[in-house]
Amino acid sequence: MSQPAHFADRLWEAIERKGNLVVVGLDPRLDSLPPFLLRSCQTTYGHTTRAAAEALWQFNRTIIDAVYDLVPAVKPQLAFYERYGVDGMRAFARTVHYAREAGLIVIGDGKRNDMGATATMYADAFLGAPAVDNGDAPGDFSVDALTVNAYLGSEGMQPFLDCTQQYGTGIFVLVKTSNSSAGELQDLLVDGRPLYEHIGALVETWGAPNRGRCGYSAVGAVVGATYPEQGRRLRELMPHTWFLVPGYGAQGAAAADVVGCFDAQGRGAVVNASRSILFAYRTSPYAARYGAAGYGAAARAATRQMGDEIRQALQAR
Amino acid sequence: MSQPAHFADRLWEAIERKGNLVVVGLDPRLDSLPPFLLRSCQTTYGHTTRAAAEALWQFNRTIIDAVYDLVPAVKPQLAFYERYGVDGMRAFARTVHYAREAGLIVIGDGKRNDMGATATMYADAFLGAPAVDNGDAPGDFSVDALTVNAYLGSEGMQPFLDCTQQYGTGIFVLVKTSNSSAGELQDLLVDGRPLYEHIGALVETWGAPNRGRCGYSAVGAVVGATYPEQGRRLRELMPHTWFLVPGYGAQGAAAADVVGCFDAQGRGAVVNASRSILFAYRTSPYAARYGAAGYGAAARAATRQMGDEIRQALQAR
Repeated sequence: MSQPAHFADRLWEAIERKGNLVVVGLDPRLDSLPPFLLRSCQTTYGHTTRAAAEALWQFNRTIIDAVYDLVPAVKPQLAFYERYGVDGMRAFARTVHYAREAGLIVIGDGKRNDMGATATMYADAFLGAPAVDNGDAPGDFSVDALTVNAYLGSEGMQPFLDCTQQYGTGIFVLVKTSNSSAGELQDLLVDGRPLYEHIGALVETWGAPNRGRCGYSAVGAVVGATYPEQGRRLRELMPHTWFLVPGYGAQGAAAADVVGCFDAQGRGAVVNASRSILFAYRTSPYAARYGAAGYGAAARAATRQMGDEIRQALQAR
Repeated sequence: MSQPAHFADRLWEAIERKGNLVVVGLDPRLDSLPPFLLRSCQTTYGHTTRAAAEALWQFNRTIIDAVYDLVPAVKPQLAFYERYGVDGMRAFARTVHYAREAGLIVIGDGKRNDMGATATMYADAFLGAPAVDNGDAPGDFSVDALTVNAYLGSEGMQPFLDCTQQYGTGIFVLVKTSNSSAGELQDLLVDGRPLYEHIGALVETWGAPNRGRCGYSAVGAVVGATYPEQGRRLRELMPHTWFLVPGYGAQGAAAADVVGCFDAQGRGAVVNASRSILFAYRTSPYAARYGAAGYGAAARAATRQMGDEIRQALQAR
């Protein structure tokens, strides 16, 4: 269930309470999980997508148990669940419910987008109202915030904006993504400014009527850690916008690359890592210390380490 | 199961065989369905999302039975199923399987997008390989083609392109959408040309290595019927690209608005309508003739009518 408070304030308070700016990306890859997990599920369910989905869910549960008291939020990426069909989507729903019960803010990473009438369906599915009239049970896919793609413009965004107002939920709009070809369209110059800055300006405008007590709005932005100069510039242009910053760890960005995404007080951004935390048990120095059976403890150690790195980099500014 | 043939040729042949250019959009809105459908499902399953999802599925089955011999393809929009959580996604999977068994090409309208590693999961989920190693059962969400959003650039597109090569499936990239705010970002001028033309040029390039015998590629474009002049211009710029044209009927476009999306031989495009076909039973002249119980027959009549309108408009050019 959504808490009634404003999304921006809930995120702010969760960061204060946990003393940590890390978002754990729940992107479980079957071939990176400890092998005993899938084997055990296949013993019960055979070589089926149900067994695969059950392994994803059990893995996520252990990760959530390991990090829930450290971090403000988790970010399950929907593609990793859609890959396993209906069973995979059940694993997504179970993961979301479990994380929310543990007091975590859940950001659904779906990059959804459509025109108004259809966008309303997405917005309601993830950010809002129960699907069935007669009860107040949340929809299976209810999350606290959703990533969205703004290519269809304001009319396509309005249903998401309406839901953030009505239900105290949030969105993060793709502004500058972290991948290698991000600039191919996003950096095209329009009136001398890159396209992503135009979108950034729209995001700031869309959030203006919906700011929390903390000063930030419920309409956030995705700003990749792999482009630190652009992050710094966007921070100036978007003073009331939470940044969700992907690209840390496995994608190559380090603490020094993300500091420009924070405001002068070290607020206004959260930094996501997925593989470097989830699969820490496979990498040095965690592999030797924890082994596959200790993948949860390894994820916890990697999460602490990443939180410390960012905190120190912010203090060193 | 994907047929081995090239997607572009399969679509071409299906249009030839059916003599019709209409795609039926399977966007079932619970509050627009004949009321007896939901009531009957609620008698069995109570006031639950399962009842709602069952009603969507039964509605879709009747629509598919009514139009499968008339049209080349159907296009279920994923938001309408995600709205009902895991139960809704099961209704989506059942709809897709049923339509493919009926010989229809299924275009999943999901507008998915992400960076390469994650885009691979989406591409495999919808366009490709079975999720589980030990069998060749298709993934639950396997469709013949998927709509995608190109904002993340070539690296994010590559997994989709790879799947179209490997599995004989297709994609439709958002170029110019049909909604009222489409131009807000899409029409921004880059080097004197609107952004959507830049994306159109990329789409033509992405499709070049993957053309079928018919001359069109497996990399299509979404081009809204509501912007006929832009459609005409894009047709010139993208001579090897299938257009999926939404916006007909309920969104306001008519036959004269779509003719510019076709090539000189009247090929190269399919035109989608959703509400004006699915809910024809509620509108004149079909309401009086068929009533709610005849919603399938009304959809069939509306589909025929729309096919005739487009055919005549093409002949009158």
